[in-house]
Amino acid sequence: MGLTQQQQAYYMGEALKEAQKAAALGEVPIGAVVVVDQQIVGRGFNLRERFEDPSQHAEFQAILAASRMFKTWRLPNAQVFVTIEPCIMCAGLMQQARIQAVYYGAEDYKAGGVHSMYQILEDERLNHQVEVHSGVRSDEAQALMKNFFQAIRKRQKAKKRARKMQAQGDN
Amino acid sequence: MGLTQQQQAYYMGEALKEAQKAAALGEVPIGAVVVVDQQIVGRGFNLRERFEDPSQHAEFQAILAASRMFKTWRLPNAQVFVTIEPCIMCAGLMQQARIQAVYYGAEDYKAGGVHSMYQILEDERLNHQVEVHSGVRSDEAQALMKNFFQAIRKRQKAKKRARKMQAQGDN
Repeated sequence: MGLTQQQQAYYMGEALKEAQKAAALGEVPIGAVVVVDQQIVGRGFNLRERFEDPSQHAEFQAILAASRMFKTWRLPNAQVFVTIEPCIMCAGLMQQARIQAVYYGAEDYKAGGVHSMYQILEDERLNHQVEVHSGVRSDEAQALMKNFFQAIRKRQKAKKRARKMQAQGDN
Repeated sequence: MGLTQQQQAYYMGEALKEAQKAAALGEVPIGAVVVVDQQIVGRGFNLRERFEDPSQHAEFQAILAASRMFKTWRLPNAQVFVTIEPCIMCAGLMQQARIQAVYYGAEDYKAGGVHSMYQILEDERLNHQVEVHSGVRSDEAQALMKNFFQAIRKRQKAKKRARKMQAQGDN
């Protein structure tokens, strides 16, 4: 049942490709794939801004795609690969969908529902537990996020400078 | 900003009507409405089995309907009315969507993400908090659930009895 390190690295590479699609559209670069029997059966990347939909997280889309493919809400043989630690909503969906395991890259210290803030998937009180694996290609996932937010800050600074120069010109 | 008890009872009545639609289709009877400026802007009832979709909870649908109506993922003026305490996934969505307040009927002691198992919406560590109001017309919400599960058990017993009688007839 367990995936080799090589397999894990490969599937996370596919999730990282999805994250790059989000970055190209100006969305927070998070990507995900869902794997069943060593086949990718769902893909997704963050599209919250473009769709103006609070549920359009990468792993949310990938899981619903897998669910549509198999025509069932139960996915007990599915592994989810996602570049950043899932939020509470996405961890809740994984628990609801009876996912077998999640592999994620970097931690989300501010909102993570799997390890950082809550440990929803391993809660023995709930009717289903999901295996949690962390740190898969985390440097690459984190680098994507860092570059994205650095670029935003750079643009904001440039705008501020332009406004300041204009104000000086006006005086 | 606060809703009167009469208003709360009215909106919960609309959520209860949604729950009855779920019951009529053989789905666990949970219903929800979303209210903005004292208008209902989203409705939903549990359709997980029919759609084979793990995210098709009542309040999930109602919130996404409101989001589509206003073309935004941010709903800071929205109140959600739902007959049963939201699960972890739905509480996560409310936090993501910046919902103002949730009013629910009966507790969900096995999976509630708002009060019973987790208190996600009032977590001060997260970047948004949602007001939580419980016990609105809870007896009616609970009665719907009780009747639904009693009917299921009754059908199961009848089936078992029929099988037993058949087996005796076969001997």
